[in-house]
Amino acid sequence: MPKQVNHEERKRLIAEATWRTISQVGIEQASVRTIAKEAGLSLGALRYYFTTQDELLRFSMDLVQERVQARITTIFEKGGTPEETLCDVLLEVLPYAPEHQLEMQVWFQFMMSAYTSQATENPDDIYHMVQVLLTQIPDGTLRAGLDIELESERLAALVDGLAFHALFRPERLPKERLRHVLVHHLNALFVRPLAIDDK
Amino acid sequence: MPKQVNHEERKRLIAEATWRTISQVGIEQASVRTIAKEAGLSLGALRYYFTTQDELLRFSMDLVQERVQARITTIFEKGGTPEETLCDVLLEVLPYAPEHQLEMQVWFQFMMSAYTSQATENPDDIYHMVQVLLTQIPDGTLRAGLDIELESERLAALVDGLAFHALFRPERLPKERLRHVLVHHLNALFVRPLAIDDK
Repeated sequence: MPKQVNHEERKRLIAEATWRTISQVGIEQASVRTIAKEAGLSLGALRYYFTTQDELLRFSMDLVQERVQARITTIFEKGGTPEETLCDVLLEVLPYAPEHQLEMQVWFQFMMSAYTSQATENPDDIYHMVQVLLTQIPDGTLRAGLDIELESERLAALVDGLAFHALFRPERLPKERLRHVLVHHLNALFVRPLAIDDK
Repeated sequence: MPKQVNHEERKRLIAEATWRTISQVGIEQASVRTIAKEAGLSLGALRYYFTTQDELLRFSMDLVQERVQARITTIFEKGGTPEETLCDVLLEVLPYAPEHQLEMQVWFQFMMSAYTSQATENPDDIYHMVQVLLTQIPDGTLRAGLDIELESERLAALVDGLAFHALFRPERLPKERLRHVLVHHLNALFVRPLAIDDK
């Protein structure tokens, strides 16, 4: 079904144009008209795929989440130790590469916009993800006696805080530094600590 | 000089109207006209104090920082132990009370807007504040052998991450919970740990 594939491809291109537009002018100014121009489409052509701005923003945000999820799935499939997997998965939600910076910026803009508009969004994603990761990690990986709820709250805050700071100061927080901070933090939880300069 | 006092008071009221406007419609939509309406002033009366939107936003942001700074100064003047002081100061930059939520929301909006407009802002404030706090804490408070740069990066990320999460989930992160997470984290750095349910 080549036609359907084309539609999906075009929606993806529109979503990416939406990211660039949000990055350039902010989410409040990212009108359907501006996005159509950035995507090189007529307003009518864009409206064929997305009838409202909300629908377009929602699709663009979902694509951010899908991409992060795809990278995380790849890490799980690689099948490292539980310690390496946890570290690599958390690193994957941090903006350590230019394309992740755009994702992260769009994500923060969307979150703040959702806050302003009092919409019911999913700001717990990182918290719940961390909670699931720590709960489902194989027995004997984490030190005995840890308060998993408390450690989830702390680790989720660390990850989002690092993401926020790396967005503004990529030169202070390149991938190696982000990994260093993360491994240092996780090693206090692990029975078998990871090497700091593991990779 | 009662006249001057009135001017200062009016500028403060305008700044507070700016916060409410940003909170309601987002920083991109916070026009001078909308803010004047929120402040109950004519556009001309507002322009007497602030000729440009940038000037107005900058003053409003400075007022956020001044208020946080004033609360921090009060904590230092109280003269608790170094451990209590550090914990209380960090708690003061978290949005645990409704008026702090407004400050924090305006702060995040301003940061994201500064990012979009490629302006040179000061997103290192928390990082540098934490770094100064950990560097200047009396000898013997922190465990020997800590990497202060690394711990500053980690603590700054934790604080901003908690602030961001508390903004969206105040019911999950009331003041007691924020304090619990913070004390748990700091106790790994302190020679003499704080009680978790200290206050």
